[in-house]
Amino acid sequence: MSRDWSSAARLCIARCRELASFTEEPGRITRTYLSPPMHHVHRALRGWLQRCGAAVSIDAAGNLRALLGPGNRPRLLIGSHLDTVPNAGAFDGILGVVLGVAMLEAAGELTFDVEVVGFSEEEGVRYGIPFIGSRAAVGLLDQGTIATISAAIRDFGLDPAEMPAARISPKAAAFLEVHIEQGPVLENLDLPLGVVTAIAAQSRAEIVFQGSAAHAGTTPAAHRKDALAAACEWVGAVERAMVETPGLMATAGRITAEPGARNVIAGRATATLDIRHASGDVRTEALERLTDCAHAIALRRGLDVSVEIQSAAPATAMDSALTDVLAAAAAASGTPALRMVSGAGHDAMILAPHVPSTMLFVRSSGGSHCPEESVRERDVAAALACGFEFMMRSSREGLPHA
Amino acid sequence: MSRDWSSAARLCIARCRELASFTEEPGRITRTYLSPPMHHVHRALRGWLQRCGAAVSIDAAGNLRALLGPGNRPRLLIGSHLDTVPNAGAFDGILGVVLGVAMLEAAGELTFDVEVVGFSEEEGVRYGIPFIGSRAAVGLLDQGTIATISAAIRDFGLDPAEMPAARISPKAAAFLEVHIEQGPVLENLDLPLGVVTAIAAQSRAEIVFQGSAAHAGTTPAAHRKDALAAACEWVGAVERAMVETPGLMATAGRITAEPGARNVIAGRATATLDIRHASGDVRTEALERLTDCAHAIALRRGLDVSVEIQSAAPATAMDSALTDVLAAAAAASGTPALRMVSGAGHDAMILAPHVPSTMLFVRSSGGSHCPEESVRERDVAAALACGFEFMMRSSREGLPHA
Repeated sequence: MSRDWSSAARLCIARCRELASFTEEPGRITRTYLSPPMHHVHRALRGWLQRCGAAVSIDAAGNLRALLGPGNRPRLLIGSHLDTVPNAGAFDGILGVVLGVAMLEAAGELTFDVEVVGFSEEEGVRYGIPFIGSRAAVGLLDQGTIATISAAIRDFGLDPAEMPAARISPKAAAFLEVHIEQGPVLENLDLPLGVVTAIAAQSRAEIVFQGSAAHAGTTPAAHRKDALAAACEWVGAVERAMVETPGLMATAGRITAEPGARNVIAGRATATLDIRHASGDVRTEALERLTDCAHAIALRRGLDVSVEIQSAAPATAMDSALTDVLAAAAAASGTPALRMVSGAGHDAMILAPHVPSTMLFVRSSGGSHCPEESVRERDVAAALACGFEFMMRSSREGLPHA
Repeated sequence: MSRDWSSAARLCIARCRELASFTEEPGRITRTYLSPPMHHVHRALRGWLQRCGAAVSIDAAGNLRALLGPGNRPRLLIGSHLDTVPNAGAFDGILGVVLGVAMLEAAGELTFDVEVVGFSEEEGVRYGIPFIGSRAAVGLLDQGTIATISAAIRDFGLDPAEMPAARISPKAAAFLEVHIEQGPVLENLDLPLGVVTAIAAQSRAEIVFQGSAAHAGTTPAAHRKDALAAACEWVGAVERAMVETPGLMATAGRITAEPGARNVIAGRATATLDIRHASGDVRTEALERLTDCAHAIALRRGLDVSVEIQSAAPATAMDSALTDVLAAAAAASGTPALRMVSGAGHDAMILAPHVPSTMLFVRSSGGSHCPEESVRERDVAAALACGFEFMMRSSREGLPHA
């Protein structure tokens, strides 16, 4: 496309940086669910969106909702989340909302309504419960969770009793989420954009080895029941499973040894497992193998072990018709996009079973969930060109499911 | 020997249990340096010792000192420590003091003075500084440590300025420490007593692997710099080094992964190493091998690693003449003792360079540093018989170095 998106891309990046200044922790970007700086983020977005003519509101879950159009036509949702992990980067989540603003600013006349959505919670930091915003939007926030978060909702000036009204409109016919890739795949292939075909199946488990705490100086090897040594052996098995299984992501990210004294053999060790694959079956098989492996290690060492599966999410396919339109838009706008599986969960995973959903990945570098996270201006321009083409093409040809 | 020590042994065990009731934590035995329950321990011991005719005082480091005799003769020190780890057993340390009381109660006329010592601090829990009591007794408490602990000393009603007077008398010619073995060696060999020939050389180190934190769902194996996986591989090497090196104790007791989130590959992992051997050279060689191994793991994985040696204590030999007397006393009293190396540090390790020292180990079961720690009445009787024989034999024949 001939339109030059570079100044719009610069503005998007500047806006992400500006919104990143609204943080709970001076010097770091940390903005958890309905924390005070979220008010400032809402105020800034409200200003930009109202200048586009959108009607802006905050729903009972704290999601920012900005509707452009009369409200009675098929609706394209565009957005991502506004919260961050502790000590985050400036682009994870919020880039997708800021790009939605830029698309509204460029939109002109459309045959459908557009709603830009800034989900209030995706990372799960404040309550250990992820996807609060998008789950509220599809009516999947259970009463227990609502009870847990209702004080925070009221403190923010909202009313938890109005949660049912947070449901997205039945007129919603498509959801487009733009998000940084987070992983290094696009960076390593030197590609600016990816279209997501599916979000990987993911299981989370906690493994506890129970041995016997004993004195580190006086207990010979043959008499040890060292729970930490067992856990470390198992972490090695996790790594091997990943290397041996194409496409598998398997990570032990947290470990603790108890009592955790330098001169005491650990009597108990706990490790976490995060395991993902585009195929739910492959994920499940790998998890079963690692569970068997934990039992074998415990048996050989005379320990006890427990493996608790804490969550198991199926693979979530993106809508294939929408994804084809997005891929075509990317190519037409001059930046063909890689079809890829997302290892990370995203709001689109929650919305997909309820609203046809598609995701555009933007190459990022410097990692994600860290201050070094960054995007290139020309990649953001490519994402804007692709998103705008997707929107205009859908306006001309009609949204696939509208 | 024909004397029956069983009722004295029962009394010793009952006294240990009574003193265990003086604790900072209801329901658990926790008595750190100069904590309030230490006053109660001092009061009980003072009563028993004064009934023996001993002159009892508390020195500026909080050590209980009980002198039997005119004070101008060669002096036999008998004792151990009064503090505990958190959630401790009832015998570690205090058994050696209570046995000293029982030996005074049985003593009769002696040719030397006896001083029962209850060291105020050995475990290093309150300030992370072990052996405060015994180091004060040999004049090795540096000004920095004294400054750190002076408020605790004053709160306990003592005067840190009087620390120089805590030095043991130049007349001290021998130190006998009776202590539970802590390890399982005597238990596994079905032997009640051991005499300690040396306390193992010990090094403590901290190993830090530095990789890159990254998203657990989106970072393929080939692009990971997983610090926790590296640390776990190294913990496996620690375990193998122990199995392959006779007499080596090597333990990773504490490990942390940062950021420590279940869905983030650890960018940094820290593990501790506690490594001991009767030979300082073997200890040093093993430590060097494990340091090399850490560097090799880091190199192969593209990580950084640092190995910080935090302490390195040489092997400490017990006094051979005194130890021969103790071994002879054990045999003569009907319970030959195993000559063995102590993997654990003890107050005798601090005193040995200054006063000829010897140690008697009593079989324990149920572990040590835990509530299940226990001793058998007949083993305590054997230790009493041995200690009494050692004392009376030394009184008849003269202390070896007096």
